[in-house]
Parts: sequence; C-alpha cells; structure tokens
Amino acid sequence: MSVARKWALKILATAGIEENGSQPWDIQVHNPKLYWRILTQGSLGLGESYMDGWWDCEALDEFFARVLSSGLDHQVTGLNKIMVIGLSRFLNMQNRARSKQVARQHYDVGNDLYSKMLDQTMMYSCGYWRRAETLDEAQEAKLELIACKLELQPNTRILDIGCGWGGACRFFAERYGVEVTGVTLSGEQARLAREHCEGHAVQILQQDYRDLPSSETFDAIYSIGMFEHVGYKNYRTFMRKAHELLPSGGRFLLHTIGRNDTEISTDPWINRYIFPHGMVPSIRQIGQSIESLFVMEDWHAFGRDYDRTLMAWRTNFESAWESLRERYDERFFRMWRYYLSCCAGSFRARQNQLWQILLVKDGLKVNPPVCR
Amino acid sequence: MSVARKWALKILATAGIEENGSQPWDIQVHNPKLYWRILTQGSLGLGESYMDGWWDCEALDEFFARVLSSGLDHQVTGLNKIMVIGLSRFLNMQNRARSKQVARQHYDVGNDLYSKMLDQTMMYSCGYWRRAETLDEAQEAKLELIACKLELQPNTRILDIGCGWGGACRFFAERYGVEVTGVTLSGEQARLAREHCEGHAVQILQQDYRDLPSSETFDAIYSIGMFEHVGYKNYRTFMRKAHELLPSGGRFLLHTIGRNDTEISTDPWINRYIFPHGMVPSIRQIGQSIESLFVMEDWHAFGRDYDRTLMAWRTNFESAWESLRERYDERFFRMWRYYLSCCAGSFRARQNQLWQILLVKDGLKVNPPVCR
Repeated sequence: MSVARKWALKILATAGIEENGSQPWDIQVHNPKLYWRILTQGSLGLGESYMDGWWDCEALDEFFARVLSSGLDHQVTGLNKIMVIGLSRFLNMQNRARSKQVARQHYDVGNDLYSKMLDQTMMYSCGYWRRAETLDEAQEAKLELIACKLELQPNTRILDIGCGWGGACRFFAERYGVEVTGVTLSGEQARLAREHCEGHAVQILQQDYRDLPSSETFDAIYSIGMFEHVGYKNYRTFMRKAHELLPSGGRFLLHTIGRNDTEISTDPWINRYIFPHGMVPSIRQIGQSIESLFVMEDWHAFGRDYDRTLMAWRTNFESAWESLRERYDERFFRMWRYYLSCCAGSFRARQNQLWQILLVKDGLKVNPPVCR
Repeated sequence: MSVARKWALKILATAGIEENGSQPWDIQVHNPKLYWRILTQGSLGLGESYMDGWWDCEALDEFFARVLSSGLDHQVTGLNKIMVIGLSRFLNMQNRARSKQVARQHYDVGNDLYSKMLDQTMMYSCGYWRRAETLDEAQEAKLELIACKLELQPNTRILDIGCGWGGACRFFAERYGVEVTGVTLSGEQARLAREHCEGHAVQILQQDYRDLPSSETFDAIYSIGMFEHVGYKNYRTFMRKAHELLPSGGRFLLHTIGRNDTEISTDPWINRYIFPHGMVPSIRQIGQSIESLFVMEDWHAFGRDYDRTLMAWRTNFESAWESLRERYDERFFRMWRYYLSCCAGSFRARQNQLWQILLVKDGLKVNPPVCR
C-alpha cells in the first residue's frame, strides 16, 4: 500500500468513509493515483481528479458533509495545504487573465443551464424552506421574507445591489408597487434583466454600485447573494455606500453566505472553477464593516436551507442533463455536480452559514415586525 | 455670557434642548458653573453636577435620548473628552482600591432597594416587552424566551454563568424540571440565591466560572447580563470555557448589552458611580471571540425593550423612595435617577443594544424553533 493511500484511508476512516465500500458516501476509486494527488494538491487535487473521472461517489454531498463535519479538512494540513493556498493566491494575483477566462467560462455557462437549474424567478441564491415544499415556493418565500423585513411600502424607491437576472426587482415591483433600481456589472445580466422586467417599475443599471451618485437616495436597499463577490478589502466601502444612499431610518437587508471563521482565502477548487475571487465573510468582518454606520436590528441565520436549495438545483441539473449535454461535455457535468454537492455538504456540516441581516441607519424607533 | 455657556447652549440647541425652557427635556440650571464643568470634565462633570443639584430636568431620560441621537456627545470632543477618558483609565489601572470601594458601595446599595426596584424574580437585566404590560410579565417573558431558545428538556443539566440572586435558576428548575448550577463571584448574591432557590434542583457555586472543572459537562448554558462585566481581554477565555463545558450540539444563550462600535472605554461617570470596569461588547468583538468555537444560530436584537425596562425600574425606585430615604441620602437619589435615565436614553437613541445570541457547538442539525 502506498504511503499516500495509507494516509488517506486512515483519515477518511475517521469520517466513516471507506474505499470502494457499500455506503452511499463511500468513494469508488478508479485510479489509485488519486491519493497522491490529494496529498500533494489538497482540495484542488480532490476536485480535479473527480472531474477527470478518477473516483466516484453516489452521495457526493454526504461525502462532503462527513469530511467537513469530522474536521478532516483541517487534518489535511501542513505543507501541502499551505502550498495550495499560497499557490492559489499567487496565481490569483499574478494571473488575472486566467481568472477572467474562468469568470467568462462560468457566466457563459449560459441561460439554458440556469433556467433549467433554478426556479421560475431565477434566484441564484438560498431559498427559504420553512414553509416551502418546492424550490419555486422556497424562492418566493425568501423574497417575501425580505419584503417583510423591509416593510415595503407602495411607491417607495428601492435599490437592488447585484440584481442578477432581475427576478427580485420584478417580484417586488409587481407585488408591492415599489420602484426598483437594479444594479449589475454584467452586460449579459443587465440585458436579460431589462427584458424580464419590461412593463414594470424597474430600472436596470449596468454599472458598479460604487458609482451611483450620492444624491441618489433610496428608501430601502437590499442585496441578495452579491456580498460574496465584494472581497474583504471592500466591505467597508460597500457599507459606506449603502449608508450614503439611505435616509435616517432607512433599511438595508443584506442576504449573504457567511462562515464561522475569518479567512481571506477561498477553497482553491471553488476559486478556480466556480467563483473566482469569491470570499465568504465572517461575523467579525461584517461587524467591523458596519461600525458607526448601521444599527443591526436582526440577524437571521438559516444556512441549513442552502443545503436543501443546492440539492434541489442538483436534481434539476441532473434531470435536465439530457437536453444540455449537447452544449456541455462530461467533464463539465462532473464539475457542476461536484460544485453543487460540495457546497451542499459544507452547509450540512454547518461550516457555511446563510445570513439575512437587517441594518438600519440610526436604528428604528419602533420594533420591526417579526419575519420568519 | 461665558464662553463655556455659549458653547454649551449652541450644541444643546442642535438637540432641541434649551436652558430653563418649558419642554420636559429642557434643563433647569441652578448653578451656571455647570457649563464650565461640562466643558472641562465632559460626561463626568455633567453627571456629578447633577448629583450636586446644579441642574434639573423633568424628562431626564428624554434629555439623554436627544443628546445621544443628535450625535452631540461626539461634539464634546477634543482635549476635555480625551483627558477624561485618559484620566479615568489611569485611575482604574492605578487605583483598584477605589474601584473596589465603589463596587462595594454599588452592591451595598442593598437588597431593600433592588427588591423594590426590580420585578418579583429580581432580574437585574432587560425584560422582553413584546407581549408584556408589566415589568413582572416582561421579565417572565424574557426567561420564557431563553427557555424556548435553549429548548429546555426535563432532567438536563444547565449552567447559569453569573446567576445574580438566582431568579432565573429557580424559574427554570421550577417550570422546566431542569437541574441548574448557578455561578456567581459575589458571596452576598450566592447566599441570597441559595435561600431563594431552596427546595429546588439548584446548586449555587460562589466561584469564578473559569474555575469550573473541564469535566463538568452541561447540556446547555446561559448567561444573562454578566458578559458586560467580562472585559474585552477575557471575551475569548469566556467563550472557550463555555465551549469546553458543552457537548457537540450543546447550546449557549448569551444575553448581553451591545454597542454599535468597538470601544474599550466606558462612559466615565457610569464607570465611576455605577459599573466599575463594565464594558459593552460590539458585534465585531463577539464575532471574533466565538470563531472556530460556535455556530451562531440566531442573533435577536431588542434594545428598545431596555428603555422600557429602565423606565419601569425608575418608576419603582421613585415610588419606593419614601421607604428608602432613611438609608440613602438625597445625593444617592439623584445619582440613581441619573443612572437609570441616562441608560434609558442611550437605548432610546439606539446607541446601546440588547442582544440574545444563540451559539451552538458544531451547530444544530435541524432548525431551532422560532422564539420571538
């Protein structure tokens, strides 16, 4: 038995995972060089070897939940992990061309995939499953939750920072009679959002939210699943801008993934293949970024719901594969399944969180409604 | 008009406060040297001159709410504020004897005062007024809120860090059939708590929570209004200890005052006369202290309820004054009214917050109940 295999099987065993076992979360190894790749390349090697078909796992999501719950990821420490993180940082900094290439690749995945994977409103963020049975219901419930927290009033002006395909803009304009300005950096998203929101009191701007004029005052702001792209160096700028655009008493609802620790690196595989430059904030970082700007009125945590959302996306994706396989190859299929599964597992293991934070400039005079 | 008076009246005017005006929050000045004392001694001078009878105010709470809402306290900057904070720090560090003296003085205030000011359970912390009409109801609702968040089960072992007079210990033992260990540093509190909890499954320990043996595992922990005495240098130790005493999945409910910014100094007047060495944490500080220890499952903010609690205490205190005045002098009366009023004002101005934070070791597998 090779040293790498011995090492890997020993630590996998602590998470109850066996090589070629019969439990759904066991790994089926097709190429024994897998272990050497994990030992030397850590998470990147694990993911790339999966994409290459070196191993399989029936319940990939549960494999990750077990690995992460057992703290096994911390056992893969030492030189190899440090090297991977170091290398990934170096690559990010030095080779922006590569990141842009990956980013384009991720966005170019195309609307056919997203429209088949996501719900009707095309929300690419966590749904709210407390009273929901289906993904459509969960995404609608999420938007209703935000409307409740913001206490949306007809004819008020609302800003959506990072509006994506405009699903939330349209929903709030239609159902609450508000005027929504959606901001996105992506030309492709702006185009589709405008199309999607036609006939509604929605204005879509393709620009950096930081370039919004300071005179532009909104009654309320929300941002759904965009803060993960802001980066820790810009958290304070982000909050300052939101503060600047609101009147006293104005609300800002931040919907973001969160993590238990402060780290400024992302998982190298996710960083390379899925979200270049993505970064998940901690409580400490968010707390620091809002000081002397906002009163925190409510911090709602429902990370378990992202597990369910991701699993619903995976089911939709796999069901739609027959109609998608002409445009995408087998390696893409494995990459995408790996992505959705490892994220689901990370939420199930409670390593990642989902937070809706209600921030109010100068605070509220009266209690906000209880929205759960 | 003196320079000090001119300066003071100008900045008071920005908060809508007049000298000898007819609004309830206007100040009635009996000694014009007041302004010089504020200019040179800041908050300490304001409070001490009130104790000395140099000025009065019908709605002292609203006076503070206006001062703090207008950011007026930040205008009293420069040399005098820095000197006061600097001096207060110096005094704290060098003269522990004085602090102890003040602490004793504060505790020696005696049970007659606290039993007349507080509710039946003698909770010296924020009540929960959402469905309450009276202080008794609000304090019971607060305890019910904690029981709900901890999902207390009969015959489980619960730890109360900073149990005060044992009101919460007794309540949970009586109503939920749990076994409670209460810890307090104060001999006087321990004695009364034991008396108060006699016949119930409550054990009161007079010791530092840090000295609890690590083998002592509890099913759940709560701490009500004690974290404000821990001090920022000990936040991490506090959280480590709580983590150590819990099994995986174990809950820790932290009930504490919070503030919008990170500062390591307290108001000099409060520090000298009311809570020596008290320190109010920020989100950032709490976030930092729980990293890699707890998953934050819920962060409930209801600071406005402390305004109402403090006002109820002030009403009780003033109503009971006739029976208390034999033991306390007029200066004490003014000090106590000033204390309750300025704290109420600081919550009304949303400068101070009240947080109940549900922390879980390794996180919960299923959603906790919604407790509001």
